[in-house]
Amino acid sequence: MASESGKLWGGRFVGAVDPIMEKFNASITYDRQLWEVDVQGSKAYSRGLEKAGLLTKAEMDQILHGLDKVAEEWAQGTFKLNPNDEDIHTANERRLKELIGETAGKLHTGRSRNDQVVTDLRLWMRQTCSTLSGLLWELIRTMVDRAEAECDVLFPGYTHLQRAQPIRWSHWILSHAVALTRDSERLLEVRKRIDVLPLGSGAIAGNPLGVDRELLRAELSFRAITLNSMDATSERDFVAEFLFWASLCMTHLSRMAEDLILYGTKEFSFVQLSDAYSTGSSLMPQKKNPDSLELIRSKAGRVFGRCAGLLMTLKGLPSTYNKDLQEDKEAVFEVSDTMSAVLQVATGVISTLQIHRENMGQALSPDMLATDLAYYLVRKGMPFRQAHEASGKAVFMAETKGVALNQLSLQELQTISSPSLRSPLFLSDVNHVWDYGHSVEQYGALGGTARSSVDWQIRQVRALLRAQQA
Amino acid sequence: MASESGKLWGGRFVGAVDPIMEKFNASITYDRQLWEVDVQGSKAYSRGLEKAGLLTKAEMDQILHGLDKVAEEWAQGTFKLNPNDEDIHTANERRLKELIGETAGKLHTGRSRNDQVVTDLRLWMRQTCSTLSGLLWELIRTMVDRAEAECDVLFPGYTHLQRAQPIRWSHWILSHAVALTRDSERLLEVRKRIDVLPLGSGAIAGNPLGVDRELLRAELSFRAITLNSMDATSERDFVAEFLFWASLCMTHLSRMAEDLILYGTKEFSFVQLSDAYSTGSSLMPQKKNPDSLELIRSKAGRVFGRCAGLLMTLKGLPSTYNKDLQEDKEAVFEVSDTMSAVLQVATGVISTLQIHRENMGQALSPDMLATDLAYYLVRKGMPFRQAHEASGKAVFMAETKGVALNQLSLQELQTISSPSLRSPLFLSDVNHVWDYGHSVEQYGALGGTARSSVDWQIRQVRALLRAQQA
Amino acid sequence: MASESGKLWGGRFVGAVDPIMEKFNASITYDRQLWEVDVQGSKAYSRGLEKAGLLTKAEMDQILHGLDKVAEEWAQGTFKLNPNDEDIHTANERRLKELIGETAGKLHTGRSRNDQVVTDLRLWMRQTCSTLSGLLWELIRTMVDRAEAECDVLFPGYTHLQRAQPIRWSHWILSHAVALTRDSERLLEVRKRIDVLPLGSGAIAGNPLGVDRELLRAELSFRAITLNSMDATSERDFVAEFLFWASLCMTHLSRMAEDLILYGTKEFSFVQLSDAYSTGSSLMPQKKNPDSLELIRSKAGRVFGRCAGLLMTLKGLPSTYNKDLQEDKEAVFEVSDTMSAVLQVATGVISTLQIHRENMGQALSPDMLATDLAYYLVRKGMPFRQAHEASGKAVFMAETKGVALNQLSLQELQTISSPSLRSPLFLSDVNHVWDYGHSVEQYGALGGTARSSVDWQIRQVRALLRAQQA
Amino acid sequence: MASESGKLWGGRFVGAVDPIMEKFNASITYDRQLWEVDVQGSKAYSRGLEKAGLLTKAEMDQILHGLDKVAEEWAQGTFKLNPNDEDIHTANERRLKELIGETAGKLHTGRSRNDQVVTDLRLWMRQTCSTLSGLLWELIRTMVDRAEAECDVLFPGYTHLQRAQPIRWSHWILSHAVALTRDSERLLEVRKRIDVLPLGSGAIAGNPLGVDRELLRAELSFRAITLNSMDATSERDFVAEFLFWASLCMTHLSRMAEDLILYGTKEFSFVQLSDAYSTGSSLMPQKKNPDSLELIRSKAGRVFGRCAGLLMTLKGLPSTYNKDLQEDKEAVFEVSDTMSAVLQVATGVISTLQIHRENMGQALSPDMLATDLAYYLVRKGMPFRQAHEASGKAVFMAETKGVALNQLSLQELQTISSPSLRSPLFLSDVNHVWDYGHSVEQYGALGGTARSSVDWQIRQVRALLRAQQA
Repeated sequence: MASESGKLWGGRFVGAVDPIMEKFNASITYDRQLWEVDVQGSKAYSRGLEKAGLLTKAEMDQILHGLDKVAEEWAQGTFKLNPNDEDIHTANERRLKELIGETAGKLHTGRSRNDQVVTDLRLWMRQTCSTLSGLLWELIRTMVDRAEAECDVLFPGYTHLQRAQPIRWSHWILSHAVALTRDSERLLEVRKRIDVLPLGSGAIAGNPLGVDRELLRAELSFRAITLNSMDATSERDFVAEFLFWASLCMTHLSRMAEDLILYGTKEFSFVQLSDAYSTGSSLMPQKKNPDSLELIRSKAGRVFGRCAGLLMTLKGLPSTYNKDLQEDKEAVFEVSDTMSAVLQVATGVISTLQIHRENMGQALSPDMLATDLAYYLVRKGMPFRQAHEASGKAVFMAETKGVALNQLSLQELQTISSPSLRSPLFLSDVNHVWDYGHSVEQYGALGGTARSSVDWQIRQVRALLRAQQA
Repeated sequence: MASESGKLWGGRFVGAVDPIMEKFNASITYDRQLWEVDVQGSKAYSRGLEKAGLLTKAEMDQILHGLDKVAEEWAQGTFKLNPNDEDIHTANERRLKELIGETAGKLHTGRSRNDQVVTDLRLWMRQTCSTLSGLLWELIRTMVDRAEAECDVLFPGYTHLQRAQPIRWSHWILSHAVALTRDSERLLEVRKRIDVLPLGSGAIAGNPLGVDRELLRAELSFRAITLNSMDATSERDFVAEFLFWASLCMTHLSRMAEDLILYGTKEFSFVQLSDAYSTGSSLMPQKKNPDSLELIRSKAGRVFGRCAGLLMTLKGLPSTYNKDLQEDKEAVFEVSDTMSAVLQVATGVISTLQIHRENMGQALSPDMLATDLAYYLVRKGMPFRQAHEASGKAVFMAETKGVALNQLSLQELQTISSPSLRSPLFLSDVNHVWDYGHSVEQYGALGGTARSSVDWQIRQVRALLRAQQA
Repeated sequence: MASESGKLWGGRFVGAVDPIMEKFNASITYDRQLWEVDVQGSKAYSRGLEKAGLLTKAEMDQILHGLDKVAEEWAQGTFKLNPNDEDIHTANERRLKELIGETAGKLHTGRSRNDQVVTDLRLWMRQTCSTLSGLLWELIRTMVDRAEAECDVLFPGYTHLQRAQPIRWSHWILSHAVALTRDSERLLEVRKRIDVLPLGSGAIAGNPLGVDRELLRAELSFRAITLNSMDATSERDFVAEFLFWASLCMTHLSRMAEDLILYGTKEFSFVQLSDAYSTGSSLMPQKKNPDSLELIRSKAGRVFGRCAGLLMTLKGLPSTYNKDLQEDKEAVFEVSDTMSAVLQVATGVISTLQIHRENMGQALSPDMLATDLAYYLVRKGMPFRQAHEASGKAVFMAETKGVALNQLSLQELQTISSPSLRSPLFLSDVNHVWDYGHSVEQYGALGGTARSSVDWQIRQVRALLRAQQA
Repeated sequence: MASESGKLWGGRFVGAVDPIMEKFNASITYDRQLWEVDVQGSKAYSRGLEKAGLLTKAEMDQILHGLDKVAEEWAQGTFKLNPNDEDIHTANERRLKELIGETAGKLHTGRSRNDQVVTDLRLWMRQTCSTLSGLLWELIRTMVDRAEAECDVLFPGYTHLQRAQPIRWSHWILSHAVALTRDSERLLEVRKRIDVLPLGSGAIAGNPLGVDRELLRAELSFRAITLNSMDATSERDFVAEFLFWASLCMTHLSRMAEDLILYGTKEFSFVQLSDAYSTGSSLMPQKKNPDSLELIRSKAGRVFGRCAGLLMTLKGLPSTYNKDLQEDKEAVFEVSDTMSAVLQVATGVISTLQIHRENMGQALSPDMLATDLAYYLVRKGMPFRQAHEASGKAVFMAETKGVALNQLSLQELQTISSPSLRSPLFLSDVNHVWDYGHSVEQYGALGGTARSSVDWQIRQVRALLRAQQA
């Protein structure tokens, strides 16, 4: 008889048990991570029961004391699981009963595992979001510090992986840091929606025993309480949002990793990873591989897979709690661990990366100034479309002649001036075009790669960080 | 020569052309939807050029006038596409040139299609978000109105699709409405991040001609400007966020649809869809199928597929603009259309649905009050765990005897009182347990299914709607 | 110095180490599952080295003996991992060296972890596919046995979850069994492509020491060898295929689970889960929840998430081995475990499920014969479209009168005969239409729900199983 | 009255209509692509009806003739859709009735749109698979031809994007071609499962009128018939498989595209895209962007998104036909179009790509021979692990001295011989190690980069193509 096994629902089941089903059904192997928040939630709930008159002060104290003991056993690693502890809630209450006797049976009054587990998970994730926010800020700060320190380094900016225009190295760093500030903003929004208390929703209909949910909220420092008990126990928006937050953050990091992997190839040779973030080859002695960056890139897939999996599980599910929702926790735990490692490794990579300034400088080539050549003509009054075409002809001429763009003579340049113009537009001052430092300083509009604009970006990101940490 | 074809990059290409590649590359078949915002963006940009001294007032007026003409042609359906119009930007500028001549060639000065297209898309999506917000509010309002009107209807609440406890029909409606308020909140957050101006970022390095991005922002009524030109032209967070917003909203609607499909089966017979939202069978004359709801449910897959597709496209992409990003627009257009249709159809379904009150009432059965029976014992001082077990025994006894739970005699109930208790806990007042109306009224804690709590929910949701619309 | 730690790439690295990176990089926590196949692969490889003259017979024997000892330690649980054992390959070789000395250093000659790991994984998955095939056959066989045994039970067939036509319960069972036969067929195809040997591909360029790959293939009983060393070490098609196989199989099982959850509701009451596959509620004593089926349904999401994750990881990856590929194993292990549990639980559910024949029969209603009514007219020569419309009118008339379709009088039926027909088509023999047993027996075309066709299906599926097991 | 509008289910509906719902429900905007196969299926079905005695020969001929006329109108673009033509089946039958009168109403006898649409889709996809197979073979053949022609070109092989070992350029081409042969094999398997006839399954229960499904199969040249009518009308495995096939094929092409984008950067400069597959920049005159390759890479996301969307739609769907399944067609059509374009563009890219042999050669560097240096020692009897370490020390020494690996003197090399060995292993013949051509020729094991092995690969792939086309 199942009832003999002390299962929560006792007293009714008469069938035998399939051990594979037991294992399939149990969540204790992973939800044991919730031990601390489960105790925390139960302590608050027992206070709620006392206020509602369902526990005497003495009973409450007995329960609170017992729960502290349970927590202590977990903290010290002495908590012993029973084979029938299918989840953390069952385990903790079972142990509580062993410690304090029948009074333990009053703790679950008016509560369901449906509202209990989601309270636990929200408590756990609220803390995790704070931790991840801190790690993300640390990464952004490291990037901004580096951007500030190496503001004078120029190197090629690429679009379509083709050399496009000279930019500051700091401008590149900031392009990724700025993306991460959005992740940081989003994480705070997700946290805000996690920070809502479902406890007091029961299994579906609510709490029938006058428990004061505002008291529970205050006890557990939640921002607000959920509005509807059916929704509260079965919505997993906050999980889906968290997984998507991680997925989008990971696409950012995957793109930064891709850039750095490329910049670290022999062919680019712009950067070199610290040994701490590289590994060698079991076959090829000369190899030093950017494993850290490849792992970061790859985790974008894993994390997104968890997000995809959860949404598919949620699709078309009937209202309220269904066991399908048990899929939420492993996804959250795995993704939290992954994000924590990724953010720390990324910070380590960025803070220890060496850059090869000379290679960066040598990679700048005059053809990257073709746009500036067009702007030279624009400043002389030529419509941009004509100037763009003229500059294109200069590029073609240089290619045909096998020389660099800046090696075309003034006369040669003048032959490609639009025939409809009387006087030549190209004059000897065209030489100023060929200066890379001069080129980047043109981009002074906010968001551009000029020194002033890069400084502005740094100030903006620092201000954002300060605001978010407030 | 490609230059003869008048392509934007003119003057350089010498190869022949693969028509399949041309078609593969072109986006005009779908990005023509952006015609209005493209004109809007160009008008603002020409004002920026005038202020920067790159256009005279007369040139600007000429361009503004020409752009108005272009817009007029689109609005009237008289705009003629050329085979070389590969995208909306090319098409509009080509037409502008036909209308006003060489001055048109000044419009693109310092601008790139990279910052142009993302400005267009943000303008378009900003409007779409407002439209979808309105449709979502309309749906929520319809649900809340209905919840208010039918607050007295009781029916079974299910967990695991098993009858659980009696609840108000309004409580069910509100459980879905409350979920949608989170979608509404999230949509405003997504819109906030869409509402940031990238124009003035050029292709990668920024704007070199002193264009005042604050002026552009004000002209186009954006909330803020992007911080970094590389990030601005290549990040598609706002697209990913929008697609995920839609995906999560659709999982909510898929769950509501699933419920209504079930409630509309012969077996449940709680609701009946209006004919306007049902269709018949080409084979079976008696069939009336809930196609509207099935389509809503199914679109959760389609919409999420677009989200998955975009994230996979973004994964590991090198910095800045790559043509891969062209995948963004079809996803956005399709998902916007889908969401618009889904929200309106859902509103229609809810507003025309008939409910069968008598069936709902008859579906309530005494075993759904087993929890209340346990609470009866709890109120007499029995710990909940024992009370739960005692109630379970009563259920088992009733099943064994083949009677309804409320048909057990007082004597029978008393036999299952815990032997450790001197005096019987079950007394004749146990009869009050079997009243469904009395049962739901117990759940008076906030969020529960009691009348007062449902009223509170209605007020809360209405207040949220008012706040969001402000 | 990293070299002191005895890492495989020895002798070169000079940087310090980040413990988070170490953990992030290591795969030993999960790839230890490969211990047996890793030993198996190494034994075959040492035979290849001996044949190529790179090992003496004595050295080979020493290695073979040592490897057996390593395997024994794993089997007995006495293998001790070192902190520097980052993966199973390193661990096994490290231990081999401790056991047999420097000769161990000859084992990796010409081999790379790139070809080693993928050989291991293929060996492991080949076995897993066989195991899962067996479990799948067991499930299908259980279903077919049940279909045969309960062939006389009729119940409503649903489309759009609306009652459509009477069918045999066995026809429903077989509809799911037939779907699973496709999974079985596909699994054999996936296994076929797993069963290809990559060993001898080195890190990228192949094997330079004359190792005979045909000998390796024969030693490890692979079907074929890979064609190209670069592809062999970096393609993970077989992993993606396996994950997709599982995803599609799970969508089948999710649909079967959904049906059974519905059929097990109070409202349908067609089936009842064995207690072994149900669980109770911690709050509601009367509840018996179909957790087993809900978990099966939910796992479709999880499994697909792994498939989605891997494909996203693979997208856009440069040629040959990148560390990103390390994501493959956890996905495979988790999905294998999930499939194994799901298939066994599903078999248990099906084999212990009770059906309520009387409820099934009572759920058949005359309106489900409306199509048969149309066929009655068709058999009298009326075009189907008219017959369909006439039958629809009969349904409408019955609904309006509030009677069952079979309670319309002959006169009433005759009023809805098409006015263009002289003599009435409805005659007294229309009564035969209202017999459910007669109805199902009409569907005698292959694949239909008539007894003969259901028998044919059973024979077909049994033949398929026999053929696949051959 | 909806019945007045001539909808298929006629005679029953009494509600008004929501135009948004009408549009939401209709599939004609896309399923019109099925016009030809719909006619084809209907012609076969009318033959089946005639054989079953439900049509006279004359009626059948009338229908066949009418259907030919319908097809002719579609082919000539003169078919006019009515507002009530919600899908292609309705449209064709409506038109048939206009053309031949009431006899048209006999065509749908015993058929349902449930079995009709899935027959249509299978016919359409069977043809598409053949077309795509042809395009895929063309791509593979182009690659193999190119591999054969350029077999003498050496360049760096990369792992982790770090230079690893010298390989043949043909070996790289073949690594991608071999991956595509698996796609080709899989496509044939998918086609095999598409090539199964569902017609004769009705809506759910089968065909009640004695239609001979074997006759239908033969008429439409299907390989087999479906086994179970419920499964036949509601399974979409063949769609899911096709979408996954495309997804996996696209990950292959995305990886090839990624390689070529990298090899086409200024930094690698190994290849140059034909102008036909590049585009320019609207801003930067010197740019030539690999748009074709970026689009190929990006489509991996789009295609997979469709696969993800369909699986999510299928998850947890109740048995048999639900309108959710209507999502299948747009996915199939879009993915088919995408694959067709991608395969052709990829073929164009490969066939017109220029390679820069000299740059490829110059990119080979002595450190890529470090493994060969280790093998030199191995061939002298040193265990590989020691040899690997010794070679690593040589690399480190060269780096420290700032010289190339092959510039270390014999004496210097000898200092790093393992101290436990009496006589030096490095002798003057070590010079042979530094020859790249000699290096690749070592890799003569099957699948390696030696000439003989590359030739073997070419023969193998050609044989595969021949076998598949047979």
